[in-house]
Amino acid sequence: MITSTSNNKIKNIIKLCTNSKARREQNAFVAEGVKMFIEAPSARIREVYVSEGYLDKITGITDKSCLNKLENTGYETVSDQVFAKISDTVTPQGILCVIDRQAQDIGQILKDHKGRDIRILAVENVRDPGNLGTMIRTMEAAGYDLMLASEGTVDVYNPKVIRSTMGSVYRIPVIYTDDLLRDLGLLKKEDISIYAAHLKGEEYYDCIAYGGRTAVLVGNEANGLSEEAAAMADKLVKIPMQGQVESLNAAVAAALFLYMTRRR
Amino acid sequence: MITSTSNNKIKNIIKLCTNSKARREQNAFVAEGVKMFIEAPSARIREVYVSEGYLDKITGITDKSCLNKLENTGYETVSDQVFAKISDTVTPQGILCVIDRQAQDIGQILKDHKGRDIRILAVENVRDPGNLGTMIRTMEAAGYDLMLASEGTVDVYNPKVIRSTMGSVYRIPVIYTDDLLRDLGLLKKEDISIYAAHLKGEEYYDCIAYGGRTAVLVGNEANGLSEEAAAMADKLVKIPMQGQVESLNAAVAAALFLYMTRRR
Repeated sequence: MITSTSNNKIKNIIKLCTNSKARREQNAFVAEGVKMFIEAPSARIREVYVSEGYLDKITGITDKSCLNKLENTGYETVSDQVFAKISDTVTPQGILCVIDRQAQDIGQILKDHKGRDIRILAVENVRDPGNLGTMIRTMEAAGYDLMLASEGTVDVYNPKVIRSTMGSVYRIPVIYTDDLLRDLGLLKKEDISIYAAHLKGEEYYDCIAYGGRTAVLVGNEANGLSEEAAAMADKLVKIPMQGQVESLNAAVAAALFLYMTRRR
Repeated sequence: MITSTSNNKIKNIIKLCTNSKARREQNAFVAEGVKMFIEAPSARIREVYVSEGYLDKITGITDKSCLNKLENTGYETVSDQVFAKISDTVTPQGILCVIDRQAQDIGQILKDHKGRDIRILAVENVRDPGNLGTMIRTMEAAGYDLMLASEGTVDVYNPKVIRSTMGSVYRIPVIYTDDLLRDLGLLKKEDISIYAAHLKGEEYYDCIAYGGRTAVLVGNEANGLSEEAAAMADKLVKIPMQGQVESLNAAVAAALFLYMTRRR
């Protein structure tokens, strides 16, 4: 059992939780909680850590899916005190794993969807981890295929983002691009229509016949989209707002758009 | 200038920020940031605190609305160090005010809307401050009239809730009830149809003709609605979800519902 935070594995987990450069270099990220462990693709699980307290409890839990999976993956036991240090939550469940990141290639994804429906959420400089995670969760629910994120967007492998995806991060490919404008151009060449959520939208989001090859473009929480990104859109689209509201929460605006493009 | 955190006014602000009982007893709450100050109804502003740093900066800001309002309300200057202690944010803007709470009476609001449209969001035990605040912000944008909240719901006057309302908390009445079931019964008697967001919904949310007297009922993030509350609904309604998603974020689900009831 690991009982010290100066253990090298523990030090590395703290690094992976707090440092996006370390996550990139090691091509890994940390996912915490029972749900995140159970939904993790087994082939991508690199390490598993379980707290003493959770181990004591788990044999009494009727649902054996976590116990069975732990037997398959193997795990290391960690004292409750140490677990509290590596956990990103106030009341940790007591299980945490290190997951392989998966390289995604936009060219390949576009090729796989050639002549077929494809739905993309493109985000420019979304900064709030909860917003980004919620968007990924909503994307899966709305049947979206790909998130394209500008470099200035918060790291999807940040523990807060991971948690708020509620597992969707395992299933929705997220591609960071160092040139969002170039990649939006790529989408246009592939006959994907780009609709930008914009306060100066020309049309309301619920008055548009969205096709099967659609990208929704959403900007930064405080400043919205850059002029350059907005200029890449086929249409600037707005959501009606009453009262004195200047804008909606970014994850809410994205959700309204995503579901509207899937209107039945 | 206040330079010590042992100043009684400062101690009280910290109390108002962290203690919901103190907020209730003093019938007040704290709102932080320029936008929250500018949008605060002047008659409800009790105290204003401005950091040294912000005072230095403000004369150089072209938009004079904050400066003009400060001259009208009056304010106390606080050292930057002390301001950092009373601020709930990592990078404080340097302005914070104490606001009067406004008593709301459900009977009066129902009477005011007799024979007219009324739209209510009822929430049962929503726990995340960001979710509750985002719901209030979305309510204003969607033209909703009232939030009815169960006692177990996070305190709307929690600084994190206040912040995520982006000012809508000044304009959307929120009523906490010690008996949600009784008050849902009141709504039914007033011919308000109650639609509950429920994973076991009988109908999809986008297949319903919502009337002008509508209440949407949303439950706790982890457990959804209690059986008792769900039983009060005229209809259990669900949002379609693809993939392995078990539920949507509560603020997202509420937003999709609120906007759907306003579909044009």
